[in-house]
Amino acid sequence: MTSPRLDAQMAFLTEAEKLRTILRATPIGDGSRQENSGEHSWHIALYALILAEHAPEGVSIDRVIRMLLIHDIVEIDAGDVPIYLQSADTQSDTEAAELEAAKRIFGLLPDDQAADMLALWQEFEAAESPDAVFAKSLDRFQPPNLNLVNGGGSWKTYNVTFDELDRRVGKPVRRGAPTLWNWIAPKIRAVLR
Amino acid sequence: MTSPRLDAQMAFLTEAEKLRTILRATPIGDGSRQENSGEHSWHIALYALILAEHAPEGVSIDRVIRMLLIHDIVEIDAGDVPIYLQSADTQSDTEAAELEAAKRIFGLLPDDQAADMLALWQEFEAAESPDAVFAKSLDRFQPPNLNLVNGGGSWKTYNVTFDELDRRVGKPVRRGAPTLWNWIAPKIRAVLR
Ligand SMILES: [Ca+2]
Repeated sequence: MTSPRLDAQMAFLTEAEKLRTILRATPIGDGSRQENSGEHSWHIALYALILAEHAPEGVSIDRVIRMLLIHDIVEIDAGDVPIYLQSADTQSDTEAAELEAAKRIFGLLPDDQAADMLALWQEFEAAESPDAVFAKSLDRFQPPNLNLVNGGGSWKTYNVTFDELDRRVGKPVRRGAPTLWNWIAPKIRAVLR
Repeated sequence: MTSPRLDAQMAFLTEAEKLRTILRATPIGDGSRQENSGEHSWHIALYALILAEHAPEGVSIDRVIRMLLIHDIVEIDAGDVPIYLQSADTQSDTEAAELEAAKRIFGLLPDDQAADMLALWQEFEAAESPDAVFAKSLDRFQPPNLNLVNGGGSWKTYNVTFDELDRRVGKPVRRGAPTLWNWIAPKIRAVLR
């Protein structure tokens, strides 16, 4: 049975699979290896499902989950830039590379789905809609939780202080999910100077 | 700020993270290593998002995605049993171990969420509701797609014939998503005897 539409959908799903070969700065819980971006996407989608009640009124958790499932796919081409290495200098280069990647990878889909997924990814990146703000807060909230159990993980790698973490991580977590930041902040303070 | 409810939610999310240490029979696309159950859960949730139009009328894709995010969490305690090693003899032991695992792991959540997640997992396992039937079909449809790109993967490991694959994989895929089976069957026939 030939179906160019299904061919295109499967070409995308087979390409997307490569996301799990992209390694992040944060080690997994047992500290044995770095987390990859595929399993990270699963874990934060699960965060959204379980922490739904901590989202501001009006947030659609199912849209947040959809967003989180696709939010990192651009890394297949553009790589992951650890948060503690991000700077204003490199940001526009990163953004340009990620937009190219989004166009190529979502572009494997049938046109209507390519447009939908590109729009959903751009909404996440813009971090303006309530759904995107909450999704971003979960994306930032998960790594410190891993570092608390893996023995300091990426905080040690990058010699992170509490103030730097507060600026790069605390701020976006507070913006979308203040309850979650209030819960974790004292736990981080207990281990970071 | 103390919050026993959030403590319980985070204890669950931190425990669930271990799912990525469970390895499956199928290698990832580039053949370099086995797939783990965390990244597998992400990949099939993405299948649900992209292949929604191939679901029977009345299926809720957002419920299917939620189901797929949690469907394998029991493997943290019970392990993954490769489909080609499953038999009627061992099935009731596997089911008992998985139910124990579900009670322990979902039991980390606040009572209301523990009950919801256990019910969602049991619905998936029972494979009777339209959402569960479609979710199961995606869980079975993804590994052959990986084997087609990774060079034969678990088919080689277990000397799988087309007839055996048809019985163990084709049947549940056809049940929930006949279009997907019709698409992949000739591709599998071309490489399996
Ligand atoms: Ca499984």
